[in-house]
Amino acid sequence: MIKQKEIVLPRFRRGYHLIDYIIEEELKGFLPETGLLHIFIKHTSAAITLNENADPSVRVDFETIMNQLVPEGQNVYTHTTEGDDDMPAHIKASLIGSSITIPITNGSLNKGMWQGIYLCEFRNFGSSRKLVLTVYS
Amino acid sequence: MIKQKEIVLPRFRRGYHLIDYIIEEELKGFLPETGLLHIFIKHTSAAITLNENADPSVRVDFETIMNQLVPEGQNVYTHTTEGDDDMPAHIKASLIGSSITIPITNGSLNKGMWQGIYLCEFRNFGSSRKLVLTVYS
Amino acid sequence: MIKQKEIVLPRFRRGYHLIDYIIEEELKGFLPETGLLHIFIKHTSAAITLNENADPSVRVDFETIMNQLVPEGQNVYTHTTEGDDDMPAHIKASLIGSSITIPITNGSLNKGMWQGIYLCEFRNFGSSRKLVLTVYS
Repeated sequence: MIKQKEIVLPRFRRGYHLIDYIIEEELKGFLPETGLLHIFIKHTSAAITLNENADPSVRVDFETIMNQLVPEGQNVYTHTTEGDDDMPAHIKASLIGSSITIPITNGSLNKGMWQGIYLCEFRNFGSSRKLVLTVYS
Repeated sequence: MIKQKEIVLPRFRRGYHLIDYIIEEELKGFLPETGLLHIFIKHTSAAITLNENADPSVRVDFETIMNQLVPEGQNVYTHTTEGDDDMPAHIKASLIGSSITIPITNGSLNKGMWQGIYLCEFRNFGSSRKLVLTVYS
Repeated sequence: MIKQKEIVLPRFRRGYHLIDYIIEEELKGFLPETGLLHIFIKHTSAAITLNENADPSVRVDFETIMNQLVPEGQNVYTHTTEGDDDMPAHIKASLIGSSITIPITNGSLNKGMWQGIYLCEFRNFGSSRKLVLTVYS
């Protein structure tokens, strides 16, 4: 059995944001006993990942290190019309990925204790991001 | 219900290539109303991702920046027998990933407007790459 | 139909390790004719990927290059209380990813000839890592 819904996130500023509270609210009464949840982001300059959910300094360092990995404003870029943050955002989106899949066990997301769902917003002024949530059972 | 098919892509030169037209042709009459499509590449020096489908300069910059991230010919490499492009190709393959999963909604791939399916060919002279397409509904 | 099991891996030292033999043992009698296998790691400083399964030098170079990409001990890190290897481990975990999905065809994992399942242990002294295996058919 498949259930699916498309949601629009509130706008987030550039950076790494825990969105578990949004996903869990959207999935209320939606989760089967056993299955998989697929979270898909319909954008090419933002991404979805799982990472540490306790210490906000982890999300700060994500911003620093991802910018170090894919620096803005290098003169090697040819795709520059949408601003210095645009092409690095595309690269980061493919490095991190556009979807995650999480097991569902006993009616709950079976993540590790420290795993939170991150929205990674790579643009300075990103739009409201759309997600598709698909649940399999 | 599951449907699955294995396909062989035409040979692509090193770089980033939109293959939506191939995937869509292979999926004609194959897509359910609601579900998920899993695209898997059976190789360790090529990858599959979703990224910007409009401006070819994005794919040019992908080649530049991924080579900057994982430079060829550094003397730290020990796996060198298959050429300077081989070990960086393996690293890139795991950074980008060997599969993507895309939601199917109303009988179509529910990607964002700007999301195209990229074959990432990391070898100078890669073989014809094999994909496994699996559709769940 | 869905089948799911949670397993605990033996402790691995920091580095990249083939774990096909463990996964295959756990999946004995578990695989359908056609389907998908989802392997999920419940941690934020280790990852799962597919890569070259033949030459151990590939796994050596993975360690070298991933450390080059995300160096330890830089003074830009703010999340430092758990040691120099901790924050880089988080970044690497999101670059590589917390799960892989592999097609099942004719009752077997339909990987490429050279694709092995890697546990990527990014910590100097990681714990026993937990995986959730989910099989769809």
